[in-house]
Amino acid sequence: MPNNEEFVVTPYEVRGRVDYDRLRELFGTQPLTEELLARLKRLAGGELHPLLTRGIYYSHRDLASLLDGFEAGRRFFLYSGRGPSGPLHTSHLSQFELCLWFQKRLGLPMYIQITDDEKFWARSGLSREETLRWGLENLYDILAVGFDPKLTHVFFDSKSIASLYPLAIRVARKIPYSTVKAVFGFEPATNIGLVFYTALQTVPCFWPSWAEGTSIPCLIPCGIDQDPHFRLTRDIAEGLGYPKPALLHSRMIPGLLGEAAMSTTGSSADNALFLNDPPKVVERKVRNAFTGGRATVEEQRRLGAVPEICSVWALWRSRFAETEEKFAEITEGCRSGALLCGECKGQLLERIHAFYKEHDAARTRVKEWAETTIVTAAPKEL
Amino acid sequence: MPNNEEFVVTPYEVRGRVDYDRLRELFGTQPLTEELLARLKRLAGGELHPLLTRGIYYSHRDLASLLDGFEAGRRFFLYSGRGPSGPLHTSHLSQFELCLWFQKRLGLPMYIQITDDEKFWARSGLSREETLRWGLENLYDILAVGFDPKLTHVFFDSKSIASLYPLAIRVARKIPYSTVKAVFGFEPATNIGLVFYTALQTVPCFWPSWAEGTSIPCLIPCGIDQDPHFRLTRDIAEGLGYPKPALLHSRMIPGLLGEAAMSTTGSSADNALFLNDPPKVVERKVRNAFTGGRATVEEQRRLGAVPEICSVWALWRSRFAETEEKFAEITEGCRSGALLCGECKGQLLERIHAFYKEHDAARTRVKEWAETTIVTAAPKEL
Repeated sequence: MPNNEEFVVTPYEVRGRVDYDRLRELFGTQPLTEELLARLKRLAGGELHPLLTRGIYYSHRDLASLLDGFEAGRRFFLYSGRGPSGPLHTSHLSQFELCLWFQKRLGLPMYIQITDDEKFWARSGLSREETLRWGLENLYDILAVGFDPKLTHVFFDSKSIASLYPLAIRVARKIPYSTVKAVFGFEPATNIGLVFYTALQTVPCFWPSWAEGTSIPCLIPCGIDQDPHFRLTRDIAEGLGYPKPALLHSRMIPGLLGEAAMSTTGSSADNALFLNDPPKVVERKVRNAFTGGRATVEEQRRLGAVPEICSVWALWRSRFAETEEKFAEITEGCRSGALLCGECKGQLLERIHAFYKEHDAARTRVKEWAETTIVTAAPKEL
Repeated sequence: MPNNEEFVVTPYEVRGRVDYDRLRELFGTQPLTEELLARLKRLAGGELHPLLTRGIYYSHRDLASLLDGFEAGRRFFLYSGRGPSGPLHTSHLSQFELCLWFQKRLGLPMYIQITDDEKFWARSGLSREETLRWGLENLYDILAVGFDPKLTHVFFDSKSIASLYPLAIRVARKIPYSTVKAVFGFEPATNIGLVFYTALQTVPCFWPSWAEGTSIPCLIPCGIDQDPHFRLTRDIAEGLGYPKPALLHSRMIPGLLGEAAMSTTGSSADNALFLNDPPKVVERKVRNAFTGGRATVEEQRRLGAVPEICSVWALWRSRFAETEEKFAEITEGCRSGALLCGECKGQLLERIHAFYKEHDAARTRVKEWAETTIVTAAPKEL
């Protein structure tokens, strides 16, 4: 758990101004190099997703050997998930959008885990009714990203437990309490559900190998704050006879109020754009968002603004600038002083409103088949 | 966890010469008084089971108020279980025989839990294949006792998890790690499965209330070594809106070699009579069993033997003396010196061989329907 004077990043907390290169060194992960990106681009048919070209995904574990295998004909699968504690915000979709890109470009199966048990254990204020309801609502948002129903499988923990538990039994025996205490910083008062939980988060990494009786590697795109979970998974993988999952790590998307990460538990709901925010609320949040602008118009025209510290630029970067040209135009206009913050926010709001409209329509369409993707049957164990 | 110079009794260990009255005081349970037994006898139609009349069950929690409720028309259910680490020995059947007696006399539903997950977590030398296989084998032995298929339900943890888990999620949030550490003496190296496990052992106590949406009390006949598990259950029951389970505690049946409890993990397999022992092995074990006999025939004729320390007398007492007359005859013959150990063992062996034959036949009959008693569907959660 890196913890110095400047920042803290754990699966349960992101605080301070994160030095992402330093964090990568502390975690001991590999940089996502130009060479690796070029290789991925070639495999993907000549294009890269903006989350890759713009440096938001910047770190990995074992991506190179995963691509070696893929080139030799060994398909892998994608795994990502969500702890349903409330509505999703726009940044939550990024990892799923990257998964979708992999699914479409490389034809890969996708496993999505909805951890309604974990969130109930982690947040004493949440009821089971809430974690179940948010689990389904979040699932609609995730599937609306555009996943292929034929290649996409959902583990909704409380509904999929018959599928997950037999393998979780084997996983849990490999994990001593001392390890989860060290990795997650658990206290004596931590409930025994949360202590157990990481076993269930590990299961999907091995599940296709277990169910199909063969060895299928896994790629997990996730925020770098989730790395500790999967370091633990990687440590026990080979002892269970499964390949270590490969990881692709992103920076955290900063909050609208300038906090380190857009968070559902931030100091204010105004720190994030929730997918169920009505247009007026979106407008207010963006208009009040923290920027890299100067104190006066005159000063900004003269010195330009600072995109690197701007939460609005971070939104353009993460998803709302759909082309590299648009992203360059915004960035240069900002830096040069040609584009003022109010105008930039106005342009962004147009994009956001359009995106929300498309997303809502897609969300309505997936509701029909969402529950059919939930895995409930257990593979025959023996 | 009582632990003094003379004995240790925890859910995971029984050692030393146990002072059962002192243990009851240490655990803070109530004595099973003559008055309570008389009341139970009246409710049961004028007879008591030998396990009750011979002082093997000797302690309880809340039995009186459970019977108050029953007399006022409030039915309760029975719950007992088994951790499948190997073959059952004869003493394992006692708690199920007492349950059967309650089922028959009072017409009560019975829930049996087979904890194949727990045993895999508790014993690093056991494979999943073994805990699954022993789970089924043990279940056949338990059902062979004579339970009514219409009133009997089995939770086989790994197979019933879809039924158990939604309630386990709620239970686990109520139990901090510090509590299980104190109750079970867990170490940092204890795996997170075992840490979580007590949540699953608690679920059956509340499950009928949860599934039927009403409040149904529970009675658990068990060895007093299991009391700590259910003390924890009782502590959280009311916070979840369920009645505290009542308990009926037995002494441990001493091992054939004179150890404190007949145990599958004792120093020697010769310490217990396993239900799959062939007749010759049974014969050898009984012939070698520790007795309360004297050094010579002459001395025994003169002084009599000491039944209280004799493992053979303990077998007569627990199940093999089917009538009170037979039990009195054996006890008096022993104490007076009229009955020598060799002859006593010979008589006992006849009874044991007959019992094994009946049990094997019953076991074959239950195999047909055993798996139909396993609960697999989850009640609709919300």
